[in-house]
Amino acid sequence: MTRTIIECVPNFSEGRDRKIIAALAETALSVPNITLLGCSSDADHNRSVITVTGNPESIAEAAFQLCKTAAERIDLRKHTGVHPRMGAADVIPFTPISGATIADCVEISHIVGRRIAKELNIPVYLYEESASSPNRKNLAAIRKGGFEGFFEKIKSAGWEPDFGEKTVHESAGVTAVGARLPLIAFNINLNTQDAEIAKKIAAKVRESGGGLKCLKALGVSLNAKGAAQVSMNLTNYAVTSLFTAYNCVKEEAEKLGVSIAESEIIGFAPARALAEAAAGCLLIKDFSYNSHVLESRGICVDSISNMV
Amino acid sequence: MTRTIIECVPNFSEGRDRKIIAALAETALSVPNITLLGCSSDADHNRSVITVTGNPESIAEAAFQLCKTAAERIDLRKHTGVHPRMGAADVIPFTPISGATIADCVEISHIVGRRIAKELNIPVYLYEESASSPNRKNLAAIRKGGFEGFFEKIKSAGWEPDFGEKTVHESAGVTAVGARLPLIAFNINLNTQDAEIAKKIAAKVRESGGGLKCLKALGVSLNAKGAAQVSMNLTNYAVTSLFTAYNCVKEEAEKLGVSIAESEIIGFAPARALAEAAAGCLLIKDFSYNSHVLESRGICVDSISNMV
Repeated sequence: MTRTIIECVPNFSEGRDRKIIAALAETALSVPNITLLGCSSDADHNRSVITVTGNPESIAEAAFQLCKTAAERIDLRKHTGVHPRMGAADVIPFTPISGATIADCVEISHIVGRRIAKELNIPVYLYEESASSPNRKNLAAIRKGGFEGFFEKIKSAGWEPDFGEKTVHESAGVTAVGARLPLIAFNINLNTQDAEIAKKIAAKVRESGGGLKCLKALGVSLNAKGAAQVSMNLTNYAVTSLFTAYNCVKEEAEKLGVSIAESEIIGFAPARALAEAAAGCLLIKDFSYNSHVLESRGICVDSISNMV
Repeated sequence: MTRTIIECVPNFSEGRDRKIIAALAETALSVPNITLLGCSSDADHNRSVITVTGNPESIAEAAFQLCKTAAERIDLRKHTGVHPRMGAADVIPFTPISGATIADCVEISHIVGRRIAKELNIPVYLYEESASSPNRKNLAAIRKGGFEGFFEKIKSAGWEPDFGEKTVHESAGVTAVGARLPLIAFNINLNTQDAEIAKKIAAKVRESGGGLKCLKALGVSLNAKGAAQVSMNLTNYAVTSLFTAYNCVKEEAEKLGVSIAESEIIGFAPARALAEAAAGCLLIKDFSYNSHVLESRGICVDSISNMV
């Protein structure tokens, strides 16, 4: 019998104030049957990503409580950061991990979205697989204009929220809630401080620019690191893998005379995505996760330090 | 409560005759509570590797039954192949996977080794963590001289078997049984048919040649593929990773004017080893399996095709 596991990876518009980040982590930990897998914050983005897993009922409760804490503690009127945002709890995605489908996650997103609008007075937009119309599928389209722009946007034709009133919450903005496949947040830092180069590369590699399917990309400047960054989301790694994304950025960077300094994964990725990337890099022929990796059989191998 | 899982990856001296390989797979499948994860055969090596997992009692039974089938079906007097070998069931390693330690596997290796000697009249040598003396730790040292040489070797000073009589089984040879950490069998094919180049690289990169720790390597020629191969075992990927091994072979190959054509993983590897290789290749900074991979938390993520 497979245990049903859903993952929720809400993004919050606070990546600097450790007290607020701790309050969010505590909120997650206070919900029964929830596993807090991690919390990743970035000062330049001024954004935090919390990863939790649990059964459908628990994950719905955790997502709501996290959104509530964010609304109580984060004031977007004072928020600055390089990453686009429109809400204190900016986006709340649900992902099937084990024994569940996207349809199960769509159902959860409706329950949680309705509750956020009703109990917190935050307008909610359903996105990705939960979207109520094609133009709301892409989070970037919903978020366009950001928090500041939403006071007008919410009243414009076609942008009424899926749940809640046409009134932006004055400090917590609006929130996107939806179901999606496991997403890999993969950032590549370039050996340049020129954000224009990162923007050019992002425009080339992303799907919306005619680049790689299921790849979203932004070019940003990281003041803290003195580097320009191509910040990417891989929305279906079975279509565009980490390996393909990396090589495409590398190639475009080389055309512009810059190289890759380092990369980073924000939050969690499935082992399968990384194993397949290794297979690509190491030229492993006839590689398949199911044929060569123990974890494909539901076996999680202990670390060597636990074996000796 | 953690389920105790032990892996056994016996190597058999038959990689060509499909009927014999099928008989081995059927033997594994006939043992209750055993999962047959895979079977990989190579015609050049004339060798097959079967991967099974189960609880301690089941895995001990499966290992014995597999050795019995091999003794009944494989005749080493007729065996040819590029890989060194000394037994029909050449080597039977036990590895802790989950909720078990090397010490548990040493105990299993003693039980199985004693039974093979007693019931099948095959002399058994304990190796790796089970070794009865330091010069028996390394399988290559035990196997030196191969099946043909063992008729003399078994009678020489210091080479009496750990279990059984000083008489090589006339068709099934001798068998090594032991406990070891998860081993990754990683072969790299070169863009050359010159086996001497592969041998030179192997001699440079392996621990016994002053190269990488916990790396064993042989240079062989693959007639079926028309390529020279560096055939490696990584005996502790926490010490020498796939990434390090690959780069070291690449570097030595380049010094000799050849390049890497492709690589292969024989049998199974832990997701952790591949994820860490990806992190090396993709320059992922601050990567740790526990912080970035869902499977580190005991969660095995379904494939995307199961989610949609």
